[in-house]
Amino acid sequence: MAEQEKGEKIETDGVQRDRQNLDTGEHRLNLAAVYVSDAQHNRNIIFDTTPQAVRLYLLYNHWLLRVCVYVFIMMDLALALFEEPALIPLPLWTTSVIELLCLMVFSARLVHYAKVIPRRVFIRDPKNICIIVTVMLCVVDLGVYGVLRLCGRSAVRWSRVLRPLLLINITEGRQLRRAFRSIRNALPQILVVFFLFIFSVLMFSLMALKLLGKRNLKTIDGAPYFTNYLEIVFDLYVLVTTANSPDIMMPAYNYSSYFAIFFILYIVINTYTFMSVFLAVVYNNYKKYLKEEVRQLVRAKRQKLCCAFSLLQEEGGAGEEPTVNQARWNQLVRLIQPDISSAHRELLWSVCDPQSTGHVGKVPFVQLADLLNIQVLTIKSHKHPLDRWIPAIYQSTFSKLIHSMVQHRVFVYVYDVIILINAVFIGLDEDNPAVSMAEWVFLTLYILEILLKLYTFEPRTFFAKHQFWNWFDTIIIVSALLATIINSALKSSGGYTSRQILDIVLILRVLRLIRVVDTIPRFRAIINTLIKIGAPMLTFGQLILVVYYIFAMVGMELFKGKVQYFGGDSVDHAHQFCGNILLNGSAFVRNNYCKNNFNDVVSSFILLLELTVVNQWHVLTGGFTAVTHVSARIFFILFHIVVVIIIINIFVAFILEAFFIEYMVEKSELQTALEKKIEELNLCVEQNHVDNNLVDAMETQDNDLGPSEGVKAKPTIVFKISSTRYRTMDGLLQRMFETEMDLSADDIEEEETENRTFSNPAFSSS
Amino acid sequence: MAEQEKGEKIETDGVQRDRQNLDTGEHRLNLAAVYVSDAQHNRNIIFDTTPQAVRLYLLYNHWLLRVCVYVFIMMDLALALFEEPALIPLPLWTTSVIELLCLMVFSARLVHYAKVIPRRVFIRDPKNICIIVTVMLCVVDLGVYGVLRLCGRSAVRWSRVLRPLLLINITEGRQLRRAFRSIRNALPQILVVFFLFIFSVLMFSLMALKLLGKRNLKTIDGAPYFTNYLEIVFDLYVLVTTANSPDIMMPAYNYSSYFAIFFILYIVINTYTFMSVFLAVVYNNYKKYLKEEVRQLVRAKRQKLCCAFSLLQEEGGAGEEPTVNQARWNQLVRLIQPDISSAHRELLWSVCDPQSTGHVGKVPFVQLADLLNIQVLTIKSHKHPLDRWIPAIYQSTFSKLIHSMVQHRVFVYVYDVIILINAVFIGLDEDNPAVSMAEWVFLTLYILEILLKLYTFEPRTFFAKHQFWNWFDTIIIVSALLATIINSALKSSGGYTSRQILDIVLILRVLRLIRVVDTIPRFRAIINTLIKIGAPMLTFGQLILVVYYIFAMVGMELFKGKVQYFGGDSVDHAHQFCGNILLNGSAFVRNNYCKNNFNDVVSSFILLLELTVVNQWHVLTGGFTAVTHVSARIFFILFHIVVVIIIINIFVAFILEAFFIEYMVEKSELQTALEKKIEELNLCVEQNHVDNNLVDAMETQDNDLGPSEGVKAKPTIVFKISSTRYRTMDGLLQRMFETEMDLSADDIEEEETENRTFSNPAFSSS
Repeated sequence: MAEQEKGEKIETDGVQRDRQNLDTGEHRLNLAAVYVSDAQHNRNIIFDTTPQAVRLYLLYNHWLLRVCVYVFIMMDLALALFEEPALIPLPLWTTSVIELLCLMVFSARLVHYAKVIPRRVFIRDPKNICIIVTVMLCVVDLGVYGVLRLCGRSAVRWSRVLRPLLLINITEGRQLRRAFRSIRNALPQILVVFFLFIFSVLMFSLMALKLLGKRNLKTIDGAPYFTNYLEIVFDLYVLVTTANSPDIMMPAYNYSSYFAIFFILYIVINTYTFMSVFLAVVYNNYKKYLKEEVRQLVRAKRQKLCCAFSLLQEEGGAGEEPTVNQARWNQLVRLIQPDISSAHRELLWSVCDPQSTGHVGKVPFVQLADLLNIQVLTIKSHKHPLDRWIPAIYQSTFSKLIHSMVQHRVFVYVYDVIILINAVFIGLDEDNPAVSMAEWVFLTLYILEILLKLYTFEPRTFFAKHQFWNWFDTIIIVSALLATIINSALKSSGGYTSRQILDIVLILRVLRLIRVVDTIPRFRAIINTLIKIGAPMLTFGQLILVVYYIFAMVGMELFKGKVQYFGGDSVDHAHQFCGNILLNGSAFVRNNYCKNNFNDVVSSFILLLELTVVNQWHVLTGGFTAVTHVSARIFFILFHIVVVIIIINIFVAFILEAFFIEYMVEKSELQTALEKKIEELNLCVEQNHVDNNLVDAMETQDNDLGPSEGVKAKPTIVFKISSTRYRTMDGLLQRMFETEMDLSADDIEEEETENRTFSNPAFSSS
Repeated sequence: MAEQEKGEKIETDGVQRDRQNLDTGEHRLNLAAVYVSDAQHNRNIIFDTTPQAVRLYLLYNHWLLRVCVYVFIMMDLALALFEEPALIPLPLWTTSVIELLCLMVFSARLVHYAKVIPRRVFIRDPKNICIIVTVMLCVVDLGVYGVLRLCGRSAVRWSRVLRPLLLINITEGRQLRRAFRSIRNALPQILVVFFLFIFSVLMFSLMALKLLGKRNLKTIDGAPYFTNYLEIVFDLYVLVTTANSPDIMMPAYNYSSYFAIFFILYIVINTYTFMSVFLAVVYNNYKKYLKEEVRQLVRAKRQKLCCAFSLLQEEGGAGEEPTVNQARWNQLVRLIQPDISSAHRELLWSVCDPQSTGHVGKVPFVQLADLLNIQVLTIKSHKHPLDRWIPAIYQSTFSKLIHSMVQHRVFVYVYDVIILINAVFIGLDEDNPAVSMAEWVFLTLYILEILLKLYTFEPRTFFAKHQFWNWFDTIIIVSALLATIINSALKSSGGYTSRQILDIVLILRVLRLIRVVDTIPRFRAIINTLIKIGAPMLTFGQLILVVYYIFAMVGMELFKGKVQYFGGDSVDHAHQFCGNILLNGSAFVRNNYCKNNFNDVVSSFILLLELTVVNQWHVLTGGFTAVTHVSARIFFILFHIVVVIIIINIFVAFILEAFFIEYMVEKSELQTALEKKIEELNLCVEQNHVDNNLVDAMETQDNDLGPSEGVKAKPTIVFKISSTRYRTMDGLLQRMFETEMDLSADDIEEEETENRTFSNPAFSSS
């Protein structure tokens, strides 16, 4: 995890080693395909180039094995649900066996990895060492814990804190590692601001002590107000989270209005200014280091493609540049993407070799990984199945009327109005028979809409891979239909209504309404940006998971069982103080927060989320401080610093950056080159055609659903570039820094002295 | 306020009109000086060019008149303190007379303005119309109110809401107008996101109603939970502010843990994602429109300088460019800045005319305004006064020992340690005689430090204009000395201790500790950035003032007297429900919020600040809703949208941008050219010299307080560029967009076809 992953970089002598291992041309081709594929997916693994090692490496990268590793990691993490303190208690031997199984899988995976890469690279890589140490510690802890439990002693499962480290350090956790590295690199600057901020809090606290400590003021609970320095520091720290505003101010403000000035100054300086400065520092550093990482990534990608090129190249005549011929290129592409259509492959070739020389040089060859990453939708303009089966009816006047009706924009408006009326009906009481009848009417109308659309548009186009809203609609409506039928059946059969199914029906009904957003272009643009950010946000999900998991494990050890929840209906006396007499009469109990506890991992996660939102922070943490010790505050303040000051700010920074990029850059240059080629070859879909509109629905901002003006003769195959390549974190990041990358292209050049051919006109202008 | 201020732009025929009015060379020079001065201060007023009008215009821009207008505006705004509902009640006739006086001043100022600028420009300017209408409405309202009050009827002073409009629309309110214009221009995009956000809230509310409405859950107050749709919408809107988290979730969460998923989704989508998107949209638009405005500003500045140039130019020979000779240039600079030192003036000339030709062309002439804006500190290396009076003693070995001691870095460390020990003593109880004795010791030590520094460094250098920390130290210490002496005198004379003076002493003692920050270079860098932002932030202060004032006026009319505060010691029965029986038992009373009311303008401002901080928002607003009507929520939601969603985000955006600029750009190119010149002329201060370190204290980041290594022969006059030119809003803004401005220099060129000489190498490289 830690080191700059220097071990992962492709070495310059890689090509020479490759040549020694080249027995057959086939191996050479395989190796090249692996290089290109690695470049395509931004994998930075140095593997042995012997045929066996390459085969093992391909196996290592097989999607099934990778999914398998993630499944076992999730299983390992999910063990927290079943271990003491458990949500669903399982006997100790069960969880131990599962954990051992998981650890064995990780070890096996590591052994596999060790076989693939050279030994000296393996042992120098901190990732691997980290995994080995973690696995060993887990085994030791499990053994010790088991023995102690057998002896009837109490023991702490401290190794559970280490589990998320596996998620970070597996080969696939590249993006997560990068995020952690960015944070670590930003830490020095964050710390400087943090110390300044703490200094400011300490100064204000001292002033508060001097000004207010001697006035015998009381808080609303009757406690002395601002008399203990450490308490003041804590209270004012909480004020930065805004959680105790304006309560903390009220005693002083009630005493004299002038004291409001003190708190106003404090809020302006610490809550607003310093928190904004934290955002600025986190944002700036995050951007800076990420940019550096992406630059290294691009450099590694080019080097790998150069290796692939030199494996496949044919020496030209004297003074001529080496090239790769079309046949080898085709073999290569087929090896990398077996499912690529030949039309698509030829399109890519014609981009690489615009003069149709039959050969491709180093410069255009290097684009290959990027070209393959651009998702091109190959749309075959099928005839509608009904048109093939019953052309007479499908082409009849009435049928054509339906077509033009469905394609008319009024059709969309009518359904928007239906949705709005439906919204009103949903708001009404569903026990009313008229309302439940209306529900059937609406359901019928929605099903009718989908059927009409399926009748008009070609089904395979309608359900194309990226037709988000079509899929969304259909799934929601079909599920609603099924759930409603089951619900009615249950009701009519035994008068019994399943609350769960009814809930699902209700949720689906409300979700149906979301579709109205799609018909407003300005809304769709924002939603599309949010959807694009969605996938990269998964890395943040993992980041949050790791941090939450660690804090939850520690929190459970510290606070398990200290606060109890006895259910709402309990008339037990203990109910009045969450099962802990120390909490009697506290704000924690008064606010009915007993269920916010660390008694199992789910409760812990929800509590940590509440602490992230920060409101009532002092009441929530106050409860746990009361049942343990004042020093428990350290745990909660640490959580606040890590999650609220650092991670949430990275989240905000990421959204800011993504939106700025959306506002600035529209499409990358390479994509434009491909589009130009598609246009040149006259294979593009026409702009005003309805089929295209359907495809566009996800893509363009202003989807003009105008009536189609006479169907023109269209080619039998059309291409459409999908913008979904940014769905991957790496893609979005590379796009983020694309403009700035161009500026720094020169210094990349300098370091790549051996690849002088790279001053690459096709790359920068094409 | 509203229009794009087209009326303010310099017209292209300005120069021709000028020529007609030119009677004397003197008038020509005056006019040119006015143009340059306008360019320097970014004033965009088209004035008549007759000698009388120019004289009136100079008077109009006189600092005394401008300060006067601000004083009267502040007086007008401050009237809210004395009018019903008043903090300090004054009879109606007093406030009316003062208001009439203020309105008369504004009218007079407007008449003056009308005399200065051409009539058709005056009447087309919405600013002027706005002022006229505002003044008239104020007079009418005042009259109507007075008559109604005389008749014993109740009346509303609605025109008070209009008062802040004067602050926006006066000629000097340029930056405030610009900020409002930016907000207005950003509104369409903000609204789109806002509607999408509201749509999301409505959807979630509908789902909450369906899922939770029928389960007979109760809130902690025993009220039905999530049964009324509008109440749910409000509650979930409040959740976006995080003010009712986690309370709003608890009933559902207690019922079933699964419902936590609903709230987690809501918080992630609406509280985190949408709020970040708001920041992104506000930030992006603010930057975009501000950039456009600054570009116009720069264009207007260049045009004005061209006008000035053509007024002063001498036609060269055939084919030669027109130039301005040194004598005229000197006259001009002396006219613009009478207090400029001749050394400084000669320095500027040598930057404009590096070849010493005695003439300056159009291109270098146009830099004049920027050059004048760069603050150059002219440091004459005086001898120390003591050195002149008693050189024998001052140059003695002992005296030199003191010098080197004070200049040694250990001296700084010793005082840092003293400050830290002092901090501990401040924390102790000051009633202890030992502690109060220690205070005298510390005070003596600090005074000794200042005296030692004054003995070592030349006093005028020590107290130079930008020696922030020296000034800070001295003022704090001297005030503390005075206050402590007064306090002791009062104590010893009558045993009477003035609480106010003691408070001041205590505050000063704590403030003294801040100095420790200055000795840590990394802290100083951040503090310096914050200080630089400080001045431009005044515009935000005005923005907040305007918005708060309007909301305070409306709020006072709506809620005055509804909530009463009877003081902490009151045993009155009414005390238990803030004087309003409707509040009996409400959370508002339980939290002791009675003093948070709209009963006078100060309380209103403090309450609005609490609402800006957002915590306990629902309790605070709930109180006012309870005593009036549910629709009062509209007022508070509107306030939340305007202040929290828009204005606070602009504040954050501004801090982000300022920090990014600090990280990126160090100094502008023009400044560098001037510095180069200073270096060339060997007039710069040496880098390692102590005098310079003192000057540098505010300027550089890494101030190495090393021992001075042998005093070198120094020139009798040295220059130092101060970075304080960014202290003005315009300066900071122009710096902000400087890099991007260069890119867009071309399109400025296109519009300035008459000024082709502008493809300006000196400007871009020099």
